[in-house]
Amino acid sequence: MIRFSVLGCGRIGTMHARNLARHPQARLTSVFDVVTAAADRMAAELGVKAAASIEEVLRDTEVDAVLIATSTDTHVEFITAAARAGKAILCEKPIALDMAKVEQCWNDIRDLNATVMIGFNRRFDPSFRAAHDRMAAGEIGKLEQLVITSRDPAPPPIAYINVSGGLFRDMTIHDFDIARYFAGEIAEVQAFGANLVDPAIAAAGDIDAAMVTMRATSGALIHINNSRRCAYGYDQRLEVFGEKGMLLAGNKTATTVTAFSAERTGAGDVVLPFFIERYADAYANEVAHFVDSIAAKQTPLTSFRDGAEALRLANAALESLKTGRAVKLG
Amino acid sequence: MIRFSVLGCGRIGTMHARNLARHPQARLTSVFDVVTAAADRMAAELGVKAAASIEEVLRDTEVDAVLIATSTDTHVEFITAAARAGKAILCEKPIALDMAKVEQCWNDIRDLNATVMIGFNRRFDPSFRAAHDRMAAGEIGKLEQLVITSRDPAPPPIAYINVSGGLFRDMTIHDFDIARYFAGEIAEVQAFGANLVDPAIAAAGDIDAAMVTMRATSGALIHINNSRRCAYGYDQRLEVFGEKGMLLAGNKTATTVTAFSAERTGAGDVVLPFFIERYADAYANEVAHFVDSIAAKQTPLTSFRDGAEALRLANAALESLKTGRAVKLG
Amino acid sequence: MIRFSVLGCGRIGTMHARNLARHPQARLTSVFDVVTAAADRMAAELGVKAAASIEEVLRDTEVDAVLIATSTDTHVEFITAAARAGKAILCEKPIALDMAKVEQCWNDIRDLNATVMIGFNRRFDPSFRAAHDRMAAGEIGKLEQLVITSRDPAPPPIAYINVSGGLFRDMTIHDFDIARYFAGEIAEVQAFGANLVDPAIAAAGDIDAAMVTMRATSGALIHINNSRRCAYGYDQRLEVFGEKGMLLAGNKTATTVTAFSAERTGAGDVVLPFFIERYADAYANEVAHFVDSIAAKQTPLTSFRDGAEALRLANAALESLKTGRAVKLG
Amino acid sequence: MIRFSVLGCGRIGTMHARNLARHPQARLTSVFDVVTAAADRMAAELGVKAAASIEEVLRDTEVDAVLIATSTDTHVEFITAAARAGKAILCEKPIALDMAKVEQCWNDIRDLNATVMIGFNRRFDPSFRAAHDRMAAGEIGKLEQLVITSRDPAPPPIAYINVSGGLFRDMTIHDFDIARYFAGEIAEVQAFGANLVDPAIAAAGDIDAAMVTMRATSGALIHINNSRRCAYGYDQRLEVFGEKGMLLAGNKTATTVTAFSAERTGAGDVVLPFFIERYADAYANEVAHFVDSIAAKQTPLTSFRDGAEALRLANAALESLKTGRAVKLG
Repeated sequence: MIRFSVLGCGRIGTMHARNLARHPQARLTSVFDVVTAAADRMAAELGVKAAASIEEVLRDTEVDAVLIATSTDTHVEFITAAARAGKAILCEKPIALDMAKVEQCWNDIRDLNATVMIGFNRRFDPSFRAAHDRMAAGEIGKLEQLVITSRDPAPPPIAYINVSGGLFRDMTIHDFDIARYFAGEIAEVQAFGANLVDPAIAAAGDIDAAMVTMRATSGALIHINNSRRCAYGYDQRLEVFGEKGMLLAGNKTATTVTAFSAERTGAGDVVLPFFIERYADAYANEVAHFVDSIAAKQTPLTSFRDGAEALRLANAALESLKTGRAVKLG
Repeated sequence: MIRFSVLGCGRIGTMHARNLARHPQARLTSVFDVVTAAADRMAAELGVKAAASIEEVLRDTEVDAVLIATSTDTHVEFITAAARAGKAILCEKPIALDMAKVEQCWNDIRDLNATVMIGFNRRFDPSFRAAHDRMAAGEIGKLEQLVITSRDPAPPPIAYINVSGGLFRDMTIHDFDIARYFAGEIAEVQAFGANLVDPAIAAAGDIDAAMVTMRATSGALIHINNSRRCAYGYDQRLEVFGEKGMLLAGNKTATTVTAFSAERTGAGDVVLPFFIERYADAYANEVAHFVDSIAAKQTPLTSFRDGAEALRLANAALESLKTGRAVKLG
Repeated sequence: MIRFSVLGCGRIGTMHARNLARHPQARLTSVFDVVTAAADRMAAELGVKAAASIEEVLRDTEVDAVLIATSTDTHVEFITAAARAGKAILCEKPIALDMAKVEQCWNDIRDLNATVMIGFNRRFDPSFRAAHDRMAAGEIGKLEQLVITSRDPAPPPIAYINVSGGLFRDMTIHDFDIARYFAGEIAEVQAFGANLVDPAIAAAGDIDAAMVTMRATSGALIHINNSRRCAYGYDQRLEVFGEKGMLLAGNKTATTVTAFSAERTGAGDVVLPFFIERYADAYANEVAHFVDSIAAKQTPLTSFRDGAEALRLANAALESLKTGRAVKLG
Repeated sequence: MIRFSVLGCGRIGTMHARNLARHPQARLTSVFDVVTAAADRMAAELGVKAAASIEEVLRDTEVDAVLIATSTDTHVEFITAAARAGKAILCEKPIALDMAKVEQCWNDIRDLNATVMIGFNRRFDPSFRAAHDRMAAGEIGKLEQLVITSRDPAPPPIAYINVSGGLFRDMTIHDFDIARYFAGEIAEVQAFGANLVDPAIAAAGDIDAAMVTMRATSGALIHINNSRRCAYGYDQRLEVFGEKGMLLAGNKTATTVTAFSAERTGAGDVVLPFFIERYADAYANEVAHFVDSIAAKQTPLTSFRDGAEALRLANAALESLKTGRAVKLG
């Protein structure tokens, strides 16, 4: 039984806390949020205590692991402190927006041998996982092209944009991780960005649509397309193309109903609205993998290094955007 | 080179004439219609002569084969006369509405060894044919269930209903033939009919929707559903279910475009409107098979006997409708 | 908070117990099974007590409701006793195999005003429910045809067949209920049965495949096809056809992955294996509806009468099978 | 009636000649090929004369239009000569491999007012056309992203590669034209190429896979992916994404049959093998559009300028490939 504290009781922390409460080998011990009312509400719902501070959580000998779902700017501090307190750590992406901070964090914790996992939920989606494993088993031969479609239903508030680190570090970072999951290390990155959705995002210095092309060291080519708006829901698809064929992993809908009328045929539901719904299974699997990794004393599938590498690709994309050049990675 | 005359220059005769004009081993020599203007128009379009009478066509030594697309009540007379004149015959379904007339026709022509083919176009549809051939090759093992969906886009005029012989002999007759094509001889027929579309059809003594169940002598079960109206086009599908799996043959649309919006996803075109469009390939294949059958002196895939047996099933369905009993066939 | 006891700790009882344990307004108090070890195992898993007898459960003032998942031959006795003990009742289908017993049960309990719900899980499937509600909202106009496909992956053991009451009462009973859910009361039933799967089923006096046709009092026609074997999984589909269009409710698969190779394109997963997986959401919704019905003191959507009517249709189908006649209902 | 001569009797010339022979407003007068036997064979098949030389064709007053399907290196010479001879011209893509030659050609013919059309067949594909027209009609709002998938089934012979001008000018040129058809003028091009299919192609100095990203002057982003090999057939798809939704134009298969087995569900046919089959309708529509353009004295939809602009994009992609920089146009 792994005993947990969830730090951060926002939307994603709440979801994780509920998943932990349901997991047979996990037990939720406490929750924490700087907004006391949020922590109290979740503590009441799940019948656990609301910790008064991070320090209280980290001192608590009844806490084996922390799930960090606080704001990005706190991640490095909390990871470091938790690792020093001997806790296992599951931290939401990104580790930080600044590569130097990430490297410093790694230097600080590497010898502590903490189990550290980064919340790249998509690797735990049953369809993406199945596509990956079938590719790895040779079904399509050598991977040649990977097309990643990732479009949010609607842009976040500008306040969020302002602290997000920009589209590549905030949103595309998931796609950079998926690219590495399927294609391995990346040799070269090129990016186009655009402002097509909301002029306020441009005013905030960010882009709201992008196309990124990458070359893996294996030779495979990768395309990512992003949009901060998608009329038909949260569009999350993969096209995995190899010498012997192709695997598609598609969207999810609430029902299997399709409609036929005088105007159209085979019309399905819109796709599930956003990550909480679309990746519900993925989040449960992610937490289960973390529990298993702690129990087995193994590096999780989405390790600290994966978090660092995804940020490195985001930064390379940003550099390409600014210079108009393809950026080669060491 | 087989030299043809097309009898009947309505919608279906016109289509056949154009297909014959395009076929490399066929040559259209003449056309005939009781409406002289119709024959003249087609003769002009295709650069052939308009015959003044059936007799002129049958006497014509430059005519090897006739394609009979005249009204149903003339079929038996023209088949018999053409067979006696030594012509090969491709006749639109049904042979007649009365089984005794069909048997008389057979008695009159059986010793003349004419090539006689009945226009059951669906056996020549590439998708239905592929489903049949894959079943026959063992892909789904023994056939257990066949579900035939056959819905017209809109009811015909009441004037047509009045001379049609009723839904089973006019419309379901194609489905009875398809049932025999896939499942072989039929042992038992049960039918439900309904008036759901147009009260004028009920007033004319006919039904406009039906569900027919049959048992093949092989043991396979067959379901046919019919409607004289279908909002989304001409619905023509087969579900071929066997011990090892299932084959579906679906509808055809004008394009492969699917649309995604805030209301729905994957919405395709309505299905092709009616038989001329849906079975365009099937009609061309049908004529080609007829040409091949004449050249090879072989009984066509859709023989006179197939025409007779489909009518027998239509009559059995009608009897079941009246008696409320499953009707066993000898 | 509704306090529950689950009677019967087999596969389906276990699933219900787990769903109850997760439901925020339900609390599982005890479980019972004639096989003591089965009850003990479930009691241990869920942290509840294993009752020594039905009587103990029914006397327990901490039990508000019972979920009856015992063998069919005990249903009437347990429903009656539970109703007399003032418990709400959710009983698995069928109520009984004998209409007289069902009527007697009804006479015994009707004045007790117990909340009684029959476990017709399919009405609670999100896709079937959505199709129903969209039809009811007028999307396809008046219902004209309903095609119900219901094929089990593999036949049950002969020992089960022997006590099942036969395919119509055991398996088709779900489809009879769905037919009534969509089309309302049924006027006429006709059935064909066959032995296509396993000769041992024929030897046991049962059929293993069937096609049933029904006419609703509304005029709508209904087709049900059943097989005790289906190579590609548990095939559960609806086709709801009306004057303005059609709604299809399809199968569910474990992932959205489709594969493209030199042999084929768009190949998806096999469908979910059987009812526990396919109707996982439906079972959770069913229990939630029962909890809501108790709280609201309302007749559940799948009432005792629905259980009785589905059995009446099964018996009519059986009579049609024996007589070769369409059977008219009162 | 437009009277045609087809220059070049290879695979694509043969197909065009047959389409012209079927077109009601076109008449094929003659054919020409440097391989006399090829011209003779086609002349015999279609009942026309085999011209002895290009000069003979251009002098022929019974020829209104030429269809140039000869090798790329002859296009500019034949276009120029035909324009001077007062013929209308439908020329296969590309005009030439060298932009200077294309400009020279344009300078030589611009004042002759010949009807010149370039054979960008894809604009005439019913599905691509429908997607375009629905986008233009506002169905998805402003275009934001265009994803073009274009994969050949198998690489051509190295002898062809050697004279092809490379993947961008030979194969992607169609995609560059489609990009302009949907998104208008292009502002910026970036390209990645790879050798994933056949080392002999690398040895010949060409690439066999590519990903190109472009930015339209409208702001829309465009992705093209190419491969010289595709296991499941000729993969030709468009994804047209806008503010209000998305339109997909998919592949074509020989039948609508899908198969369900113990291994998989919904498995369709492989896609049509290559351009002759896939774009059969498109080629017929292309020729019809050319006939209409001549009759209406209008610039065809795929004009000489479109041919020049597609080549300009191919050259820009090649420059990007060499420099690692995004190339700005205009």
